[in-house]
Amino acid sequence: MNKHILGIDWGTSNRRAYLIDQDGACLAEHEDGQGMLAVGGREHFGASLAGVLAAMKLPDDVPVIMSGMVGSASGWQEVSYLDASVPLEQLPRHLAAVTDPAWAGRAHIVPGYVYRNGAAADVMRGEETQLLGAVAQGHRDGWLVLPGTHSKWVLLRDGVIQSFATYMTGELFAMLSKGGTLSVMMDGDTANAEGFVTGLNQAARHEPLSNSLFRVRAGVVSRSAPAEQAAATISGLLIGAEFAAAARAAEGQGIAVIGSPALAARYAVAAEHFGLSCTVLDPHQVYCTAVSQFLKA
Amino acid sequence: MNKHILGIDWGTSNRRAYLIDQDGACLAEHEDGQGMLAVGGREHFGASLAGVLAAMKLPDDVPVIMSGMVGSASGWQEVSYLDASVPLEQLPRHLAAVTDPAWAGRAHIVPGYVYRNGAAADVMRGEETQLLGAVAQGHRDGWLVLPGTHSKWVLLRDGVIQSFATYMTGELFAMLSKGGTLSVMMDGDTANAEGFVTGLNQAARHEPLSNSLFRVRAGVVSRSAPAEQAAATISGLLIGAEFAAAARAAEGQGIAVIGSPALAARYAVAAEHFGLSCTVLDPHQVYCTAVSQFLKA
Repeated sequence: MNKHILGIDWGTSNRRAYLIDQDGACLAEHEDGQGMLAVGGREHFGASLAGVLAAMKLPDDVPVIMSGMVGSASGWQEVSYLDASVPLEQLPRHLAAVTDPAWAGRAHIVPGYVYRNGAAADVMRGEETQLLGAVAQGHRDGWLVLPGTHSKWVLLRDGVIQSFATYMTGELFAMLSKGGTLSVMMDGDTANAEGFVTGLNQAARHEPLSNSLFRVRAGVVSRSAPAEQAAATISGLLIGAEFAAAARAAEGQGIAVIGSPALAARYAVAAEHFGLSCTVLDPHQVYCTAVSQFLKA
Repeated sequence: MNKHILGIDWGTSNRRAYLIDQDGACLAEHEDGQGMLAVGGREHFGASLAGVLAAMKLPDDVPVIMSGMVGSASGWQEVSYLDASVPLEQLPRHLAAVTDPAWAGRAHIVPGYVYRNGAAADVMRGEETQLLGAVAQGHRDGWLVLPGTHSKWVLLRDGVIQSFATYMTGELFAMLSKGGTLSVMMDGDTANAEGFVTGLNQAARHEPLSNSLFRVRAGVVSRSAPAEQAAATISGLLIGAEFAAAARAAEGQGIAVIGSPALAARYAVAAEHFGLSCTVLDPHQVYCTAVSQFLKA
């Protein structure tokens, strides 16, 4: 049995690597911008991974476990989604061995999950590893929320996914900030408390986003709302839509948010607004706990 | 009294000019890309307008009536919004005279409308002129829909605006097509019938757009939905959100759509899907009718 394992959270734009021991302690870290898009084609992933080991001065034989877009159709090799009914703790049994001969036997990819509900489907890649860590830390039931570019709301029962939903919150916010009608009024503080609550309240009314967003602009140009609150209102509209959709199902329960301090703080405000208790889990710790599960397995 | 008037629909990116006689007949047309953004500052609007007259070989003394973003804070001169309670047929009494000495007495700007509902506001600039034309054509009651970059749904009673709502349908679709997670799967036909209805059905369930949009992607990557339907499904989600919001209020009534044939056809499909009858009005004819009202006034 190995004493150490290198876990890599290999996303679309970035990757983070953690050298973990059996207790889930992180012995070394590395982060760079060599996400899936930067690697530039599946034939380059092997060399790119060798670069991580070299940068971290690790021996060639350290086992590597990778999560995220590295396992997508545009990644190193496509790994089929597991059905949501497969318990998270069984993830170590479903790893895909990298077929690249230079890495065979040493490197594995964690599969994502698909959740099917009638004709509709939702998918995750990368978040399943965080969820495994949360389960190992004792969060086996209730709502786990992973905010970000594509926010995930996952309902667990005894360590098994009951359902999950993805919201393009971060991506839509970034798009609206970058160009178009609203971008000119989005340089205010996204954490402005009054603006954020205005957005949460509007989201709670389940009105269409395409209308609520325009009304942010209309409020500013008709001098009904201060321009400096616009960014926070839009953040509140987008985050509030997640809560408005999930809050009915989550009634009386709490949520656990796995997110950076700044983002988790915003979700904690929203949770209180929607009458939910909120626990915050550190994403790095959760990830390291998850990787240690693969070492133990 | 003048025999002719030049109406200019001066928007953000384009402008269209129509020489109209007292019967609303269009004697000449001109269209170019000199929208508000291209003019480049309020001191250039006078020369830009002179360019239209020159291009159309019109005498200097033809009266000019302008609608749209030309009257915004970033346009030629800011014209205050009228309250929605002012009847559309009174618009000719509320024109703003251009203060630029070179055009004083010859050029006027039609004011937009603001609709206030509690703390919320919605605004229009340009659409009020189309609405005046529709009213003059006998559409004094019920829902008028003006699809586009910022779709407007306007409820009229005896030629007076009861309420209106704006949806950033066209802008969001363009943004999603241009970049980000969904853009790679949006090169299919936006009018694909099956995809469009899939989107309309999802919109009817009032689920958050940020989730519905991600599920279009999830459907494609999990092989549950064909990629060639994605663009039409997204179009259906956005247009369907307008109908889902308004359909309850519009129950049993019909709508009149003032839009280009391609867009109006898509709205007619959606109207049938939501159980509403639908009349299509030609936007150029409606605009010319409106401008003739200013000539008569």
